Amino acid sequence: MKLKPLGDRLIVKAVEEEATTASGIVLPDTAKEKPQKGKVLAVGDGKLDDNGTRQPLDVVEGDEVLYSKYGGTEITVDGEDLLVLRESDVLAKVAG
Amino acid sequence: MKLKPLGDRLIVKAVEEEATTASGIVLPDTAKEKPQKGKVLAVGDGKLDDNGTRQPLDVVEGDEVLYSKYGGTEITVDGEDLLVLRESDVLAKVAG
Amino acid sequence: MKLKPLGDRLIVKAVEEEATTASGIVLPDTAKEKPQKGKVLAVGDGKLDDNGTRQPLDVVEGDEVLYSKYGGTEITVDGEDLLVLRESDVLAKVAG
Amino acid sequence: MKLKPLGDRLIVKAVEEEATTASGIVLPDTAKEKPQKGKVLAVGDGKLDDNGTRQPLDVVEGDEVLYSKYGGTEITVDGEDLLVLRESDVLAKVAG
Amino acid sequence: MKLKPLGDRLIVKAVEEEATTASGIVLPDTAKEKPQKGKVLAVGDGKLDDNGTRQPLDVVEGDEVLYSKYGGTEITVDGEDLLVLRESDVLAKVAG
Amino acid sequence: MKLKPLGDRLIVKAVEEEATTASGIVLPDTAKEKPQKGKVLAVGDGKLDDNGTRQPLDVVEGDEVLYSKYGGTEITVDGEDLLVLRESDVLAKVAG
Amino acid sequence: MKLKPLGDRLIVKAVEEEATTASGIVLPDTAKEKPQKGKVLAVGDGKLDDNGTRQPLDVVEGDEVLYSKYGGTEITVDGEDLLVLRESDVLAKVAG
Repeated sequence: MKLKPLGDRLIVKAVEEEATTASGIVLPDTAKEKPQKGKVLAVGDGKLDDNGTRQPLDVVEGDEVLYSKYGGTEITVDGEDLLVLRESDVLAKVAG
Repeated sequence: MKLKPLGDRLIVKAVEEEATTASGIVLPDTAKEKPQKGKVLAVGDGKLDDNGTRQPLDVVEGDEVLYSKYGGTEITVDGEDLLVLRESDVLAKVAG
Repeated sequence: MKLKPLGDRLIVKAVEEEATTASGIVLPDTAKEKPQKGKVLAVGDGKLDDNGTRQPLDVVEGDEVLYSKYGGTEITVDGEDLLVLRESDVLAKVAG
Repeated sequence: MKLKPLGDRLIVKAVEEEATTASGIVLPDTAKEKPQKGKVLAVGDGKLDDNGTRQPLDVVEGDEVLYSKYGGTEITVDGEDLLVLRESDVLAKVAG
Repeated sequence: MKLKPLGDRLIVKAVEEEATTASGIVLPDTAKEKPQKGKVLAVGDGKLDDNGTRQPLDVVEGDEVLYSKYGGTEITVDGEDLLVLRESDVLAKVAG
Repeated sequence: MKLKPLGDRLIVKAVEEEATTASGIVLPDTAKEKPQKGKVLAVGDGKLDDNGTRQPLDVVEGDEVLYSKYGGTEITVDGEDLLVLRESDVLAKVAG
Repeated sequence: MKLKPLGDRLIVKAVEEEATTASGIVLPDTAKEKPQKGKVLAVGDGKLDDNGTRQPLDVVEGDEVLYSKYGGTEITVDGEDLLVLRESDVLAKVAG
């Protein structure tokens, strides 16, 4: 199932950080924070501004982004856990 | 009874996901989450913007959409459970 | 007493749904939900937009509408229970 | 003391509804609801819109209006209980 | 110390209403409501609108105004208790 | 360390009112209210309006201002207690 | 990993104030307030205004800024604790 986000939304797949501490201990799942980094799978066409013009997103498919930990809506698509975010929940993108 | 939603609203009929887990066990009704996927039955003509122009919706009749679990108003029409959503409650549409 | 709603308001008289369940049992009054369907008795001239132009309503006198259960203000006019709604509380109108 | 309301405000004197029930019993004062109908004594010149133009009110001096029960500010002028409302608290006017 | 209010603010000195009831009893201080009438001592130049133009106030120095009981900020200037109000807290002015 | 406030902010140093009551008693520190008068040490360049034009502040460096008691953010710069306010927290300036 | 903040955001690294009191006592970590001063590592391209034009930030890479203690989102990048702020959380910048 391929999804097309609406407006200023994007679909993100969380990127798992390596769960090993500096001293080499592998952390069990519950000791890890919810991921904040993700890969953009799909982007919307942007919001309509007051003049009826689309405002294209700054983020494109394939970008890696940092996003705010409590933003977005979790969805499950074909057994995969994804996140639908608004672009305003994206803090920064990882520069090439 | 045929309904015409107002403004940026749409009427959606929830699509039941298959209630069988990976291991083949059929889940009783209470163990299922409220559906998040639906089929668009009718759409409004769009909101008037500040210049008095209609902003047409991105979603059309027949689209399949993912929507936010707690959005919208439940209505019962001719014995059928439907949902009236604002387009802003739609997260993404299922691409062709 | 004839009323003219102001701005984007309309006056609605609730349409009683038939209070008989599928199995033919007549429900006493308290078991019924507050009605959500109504007939439009009068409409305002619309809100002024930022340029001082009226935005006419999508709903006209005589329309049947579905409205949000908790919206609006109840008034009693000549012994009749009516509801003053804003058009934004109207979910959909019943199409011809 | 004559008052001139500011902006989109109006001054209203509540119209007492007849406090007799259908069966002819005169209700003591505490059993009556706070009045919702009133006569407009004075109106403001309207709000300035974003372009600095006044938006004249739809309500004029002498109109009878229904207003929302909990809106407005009670004032006492020359021993008379009046109400200062914003026009947006007026639900409808009684049509001539 | 002379004060110049900023933007859409004004400085008001409360006008004491006569504290004698109709039957001639002088009320002690605690039985009186906080005054709602005042004299305007100074007015600001008005707010800048979206186009950078000042919106002059409807109220001028010397006006008597009714204001909302809980609005404004109390200040003490040269031992005198004054009130800084926004013009939107002014309900009406006393017409000449 | 010299600070340049951003946008519509200003930096204020509270002016201590004389802590002696009318009867000549010097009040200990806890009996005094938080000061509301201050001297402006630095001002921002003003906010950008919707057209991208700066809206210069009404307050300039050196002005004495009255400000709302609970507004602003306290900072300590070189051991000195200062306050960063938005211009909208300034009630009035002391006229020359 | 190099980050590019989105819109009106910036990435800041807190500058540790010297943790020695006037009397020369080194304070343990818990007695220090959370830092409010930081160095700007990266800035976004600015928000789009209503006309679709970018509003460039007043803050540039390398600036030292004071920011509001509870603003922003903490992130950890390559083991370094950073803060993503909106420019509106920046109170002032340290001048030259």
